[in-house]
Amino acid sequence: MTEETDATSQIEAMGRRARTAAAELAYAPAAAKAAALNAAADLVEARESEILAANALDLAYGAEKGLSAAMMDRLKLDAGRIAAIVKGLRDVAAQPDPVGEVIKEWDRPTGLHIRRVRTPIGVIGVIYESRPNVTADAGALCLKSGNAVILRGGSESLNASRAIHACLVGGLRAAGLPEDAIQLVPSRDRALVGAMLRAVGLIDVIIPRGGKGLVGLVQTEARVPVFAHLEGICHVYADGAADLEKARRVVLNAKTRRTGICGAMECLLIDRAFYDRHGAVLVEDLVAAGVEVRAEGALLKVPGTVAAAPDDFGREFLDMICAARIVEGVDGAIEHIRRFGSNHTESILTEDDAAADKFCTRLDSAILMRNASTQFADGGEFGMGAEIGIATGKLHARGPVGAEQLTSFKYLVTGDGTIRA
Amino acid sequence: MTEETDATSQIEAMGRRARTAAAELAYAPAAAKAAALNAAADLVEARESEILAANALDLAYGAEKGLSAAMMDRLKLDAGRIAAIVKGLRDVAAQPDPVGEVIKEWDRPTGLHIRRVRTPIGVIGVIYESRPNVTADAGALCLKSGNAVILRGGSESLNASRAIHACLVGGLRAAGLPEDAIQLVPSRDRALVGAMLRAVGLIDVIIPRGGKGLVGLVQTEARVPVFAHLEGICHVYADGAADLEKARRVVLNAKTRRTGICGAMECLLIDRAFYDRHGAVLVEDLVAAGVEVRAEGALLKVPGTVAAAPDDFGREFLDMICAARIVEGVDGAIEHIRRFGSNHTESILTEDDAAADKFCTRLDSAILMRNASTQFADGGEFGMGAEIGIATGKLHARGPVGAEQLTSFKYLVTGDGTIRA
Repeated sequence: MTEETDATSQIEAMGRRARTAAAELAYAPAAAKAAALNAAADLVEARESEILAANALDLAYGAEKGLSAAMMDRLKLDAGRIAAIVKGLRDVAAQPDPVGEVIKEWDRPTGLHIRRVRTPIGVIGVIYESRPNVTADAGALCLKSGNAVILRGGSESLNASRAIHACLVGGLRAAGLPEDAIQLVPSRDRALVGAMLRAVGLIDVIIPRGGKGLVGLVQTEARVPVFAHLEGICHVYADGAADLEKARRVVLNAKTRRTGICGAMECLLIDRAFYDRHGAVLVEDLVAAGVEVRAEGALLKVPGTVAAAPDDFGREFLDMICAARIVEGVDGAIEHIRRFGSNHTESILTEDDAAADKFCTRLDSAILMRNASTQFADGGEFGMGAEIGIATGKLHARGPVGAEQLTSFKYLVTGDGTIRA
Repeated sequence: MTEETDATSQIEAMGRRARTAAAELAYAPAAAKAAALNAAADLVEARESEILAANALDLAYGAEKGLSAAMMDRLKLDAGRIAAIVKGLRDVAAQPDPVGEVIKEWDRPTGLHIRRVRTPIGVIGVIYESRPNVTADAGALCLKSGNAVILRGGSESLNASRAIHACLVGGLRAAGLPEDAIQLVPSRDRALVGAMLRAVGLIDVIIPRGGKGLVGLVQTEARVPVFAHLEGICHVYADGAADLEKARRVVLNAKTRRTGICGAMECLLIDRAFYDRHGAVLVEDLVAAGVEVRAEGALLKVPGTVAAAPDDFGREFLDMICAARIVEGVDGAIEHIRRFGSNHTESILTEDDAAADKFCTRLDSAILMRNASTQFADGGEFGMGAEIGIATGKLHARGPVGAEQLTSFKYLVTGDGTIRA
């Protein structure tokens, strides 16, 4: 109880400082924000050995805690990853500044001129796993969009996150911006996460970035609005009217280019008409590429496939594993995806406009593709610059969340002594 | 406990039906939705006497419960108000359909074509006070935007709301749309409100429409996202560089045109430079028009003013009452509004571009005006058609919430067998 009270008052103090910084950031010149990010990049570059030394402490702590190999890999920094952080900061600095953009403007018969103008949201809380590079990515995107941010990284990454955060603060200082614009929760105390989730009025939105467990916890516990980033259970549907060569190319890429990203195909749906014409060639390709295909019915005749368990559908493998099933046309695909999908990204492979239209209007995933690989579900590939994740909720932000999606808007109305009749 | 369980299962059943209807509505043709609304309008017109008879039962119930005169007035229907409901339904029918609109589209170097397309949100819950006309307004806007809706009106309006709801359902039936698209909570049981607020996964967003008490309850209790419609504590600031005649015209209109709407001015801020040049003429005008001006300092010298209590600043009077204070320039106005405002609508009266710019960039109300009356804070006046309220939150919807603001979006991505490198 005392611990919870302490955590609450600590987060409240950070939240009030963030709120004050946010009021100033909201009208900070674009050049100042870009200068802060470039100065931060210079500092990360200059302090590489210091950051790596901090990371070495984290790695020792992580090894002692018995982190899995995958988690240790995400925790680890090296010269290449530091260079990627530096490049990321400079890329965000170079992006157009979203704040102040006139989204829409129009005149009214009353003589009023109305503009809808992009503004920051205010204060953003980002809760992420032990990946120190997210400290830089998330801090940069929030600053670019004029928001103050409170960052809470995984406890194993605390030392490296602190070292990177110090570079961000140095950048703010160099550009004359408030240092409280980017704050890092300075402790491993888990009660502080709970306090962030309850900080209504101080934090405007929470962005969880991490696995299913973290996102689920945040969604259950948060009293502050959340930009949900759920699983990417992405489907590719090969329609009877698909072009065979395009279908083979896309399916292989969607599964195997990178298996650990949320846009990787997790389930292949084959139209019976496609199967009747071309057989199980798509499954054969996957098996040949080393994918474990968990299949049903006729598809199991392909040597190397294994029988799918019921829970293999609707499952995010993030590995060289894939579920596969034959469905009855685009209606069957839609029915399957509505039942098992996570509203992230699905792709239809077809030359038939009517089938594509049905797929795209009747499904409501954040991203629906035609004749393209689900691996394109990425802010960079969409031309949005860096992203903080792919939102699968329907409110405010959806799909890749970049700087623009971290903004709100207000209306500016100009009259000339105009009164309402 | 049993009561709560019953309420939960009743709302869950309604929510599941709404979800099914929403999946169908999402791709319903614009013409069908418009036809449903026009057919509903015809039914309301044809059933006028039936609706008025139902309303008479409500009025008797309300009188027995001892409702205030203002509440009885909002509850009461008559021929004029029925005609307004009919016109409202036809107006929404005639508006452009937002669903499917391509908000933005662009090409990528990879050959992908990306479109951002407007979609419904899904299922909306509207909780409102005993104003039977809201049943028609809210039902119409949700249908227009392709959403299914669960309506829960104030208990005193249940009979008239049922009669109007029956017309809406008749319209849906006539147009071949699912009748579950517009559902009305069929009981006065308050536990059902709580169940709606907890219906995560079944209701996508709750819109409270009513006074401070209702909105506060919803914001505290809801686990479902809320489009907040808080108080309208609207400020008008007369800058030293204001044009006197424009200022007099706007201030009088902002306070007195209609005092009961959320865009009415509740506080007048006068720049000391304005006062030095023109004296207290704006306050004199308000007093002459019958407004009780609760003032401070030099403004109290105007005969008819009364001394402001501390809590008169930041107060929504919704009456012929107004707070007034002298401030030190635009900085003083900004400081006052940040402290006492509700982020709804504020107006600056000035001929000085720099002052206007400062006011508009440093304040973050949903609507900021220059030389215009705050009474224009209205979806109709913005050219948005009907509105369900003015949102004062920053996420998703802000300012007047019309059909367009009740939508989300998805990305449609087209390639030609395009794979990611």
